Amino acid sequence: MLTGIHVVMIGGDARQLEIIRKLSSLDARISLVGFEQLNDGFIGASKQELSEIEWPSVDAILLPVGGLSNDGVINSVFSNETLTLEATQLSKTPKSCTIYTGIISDQLEKMAKQSKCQMIALMDRDDVAIYNSIPTAEGAVMLAIQHTDITIHNANVSVLGLGRIGMTIAKTFKALGANVSVGVREKANLARAFELGMKPFSIENIKEAMKSADLVINTIPAKVVTSNVLTEMKQHAFILDLASKPGGVDFDYAEKRGLKAMLVPGLPGMVAPKTSGKILAGVLSDLLLEQTQS
Amino acid sequence: MLTGIHVVMIGGDARQLEIIRKLSSLDARISLVGFEQLNDGFIGASKQELSEIEWPSVDAILLPVGGLSNDGVINSVFSNETLTLEATQLSKTPKSCTIYTGIISDQLEKMAKQSKCQMIALMDRDDVAIYNSIPTAEGAVMLAIQHTDITIHNANVSVLGLGRIGMTIAKTFKALGANVSVGVREKANLARAFELGMKPFSIENIKEAMKSADLVINTIPAKVVTSNVLTEMKQHAFILDLASKPGGVDFDYAEKRGLKAMLVPGLPGMVAPKTSGKILAGVLSDLLLEQTQS
Repeated sequence: MLTGIHVVMIGGDARQLEIIRKLSSLDARISLVGFEQLNDGFIGASKQELSEIEWPSVDAILLPVGGLSNDGVINSVFSNETLTLEATQLSKTPKSCTIYTGIISDQLEKMAKQSKCQMIALMDRDDVAIYNSIPTAEGAVMLAIQHTDITIHNANVSVLGLGRIGMTIAKTFKALGANVSVGVREKANLARAFELGMKPFSIENIKEAMKSADLVINTIPAKVVTSNVLTEMKQHAFILDLASKPGGVDFDYAEKRGLKAMLVPGLPGMVAPKTSGKILAGVLSDLLLEQTQS
Repeated sequence: MLTGIHVVMIGGDARQLEIIRKLSSLDARISLVGFEQLNDGFIGASKQELSEIEWPSVDAILLPVGGLSNDGVINSVFSNETLTLEATQLSKTPKSCTIYTGIISDQLEKMAKQSKCQMIALMDRDDVAIYNSIPTAEGAVMLAIQHTDITIHNANVSVLGLGRIGMTIAKTFKALGANVSVGVREKANLARAFELGMKPFSIENIKEAMKSADLVINTIPAKVVTSNVLTEMKQHAFILDLASKPGGVDFDYAEKRGLKAMLVPGLPGMVAPKTSGKILAGVLSDLLLEQTQS
């Protein structure tokens, strides 16, 4: 239980509701900042202004997946006001207070250092990335069905990367009956792709390997789908880039060649906000329980 | 090859293009009626008016998937004109001439009888239904992802019916990691569902079985999801009815209870027109080859 633990949640989207629900069920004391338009009530949770927070009693600060932008702004779909956070406020928190954020911007990094606050980036964690790969893969399936006039079944699908996300993507498309090939750099991943019944290829041979692709899904955060690769691809091929911005595809060249290409980070919150919220809620509550027991 | 075989294609949608492509590659002579707005050229195919057709030389008449409506109209996305067909025209065709249509309306049935024309309904064929179950299942996946805020993975999915479509639906959702239960009437299908690693239930126990469902996909063309069943379902449950009109769900009651329910026949042409066209082209060309060789 999180009885007596004071959590300040600042901003966010539908995913935060699952987090509030979970923390409320664990009896935490929750201060909600930037939730004026939220109508649901949760036991132990109260809406507050940032100026009203009793910082010395705060055990944890929860930022949304997007964290604090480099302009110092925190987004909230439940508020019309501009939410910010100051290093001076953070400085008033006790030593044990931890900031939980999705991602860490340079600005947030700087503020945390200034105020000597500990910080955990949930999106950097392996468990979160693996759980999130499930809604990501389903989002990719949805987009592939929407944006092509063929079935995934029997299509030639090239997945680039076999990491935490690439593995789930490749398995999901294979489960739907696609002919999946996987482009990787490491020998171990060539072996893994083979073990999974997919066609492995070395990323060095990407140009040759992608000539027959109907659908390409990139998860590698580096420029791998260059103009050199794009120029040889089929005209009807659809390219989905799931790597973090700016992605791994030469989008300018793809557009010039008339190839359909999309950069789509953040699919989990888009296609399955409830499941994504539950993922974050589960990991967060575990981390808070660990924090308070140590 | 279909050299010398005269095929009249009247109306249709993007799927017809794959059929034209295939028949053209087999050297058929194709009269296209209702394709004024089609810009692509195909060898052996010429655009004609219905009044210009030399009926005594016609070996086959191809109608779209929707066939001829009971008002006597044939739809075409490539024409603004109203397309019709008269029994008097059909009477002029040789005895061996066959009408290939997707479905057979009462009006078409009557006309074919009057003019003593043989007729084949492609959508009634097992092979077409099984091939089409692939894009249908992908369409169901797309809709499930779009209309729920949870992932298919780990969701409770109830599939009603384990026929040509139900089987593909159930396997597809299981492949995506859902907890699939299957409601059927026959003992053999209870056994099949069990063999596939799904939870079988007798359709008589549907009310109890669907209490925990997050997603229900009906393929049974009979009123199975009654108000009695709906009243016990979870509020967030999403119901997808793929059975032919009017479907198997009490939509009025579902709306009253605020449950999201959709009747969506014809998914293949919607989500994968190219693949669906290829399915029809493959079966049609086989049938025409058989017809002309006999």
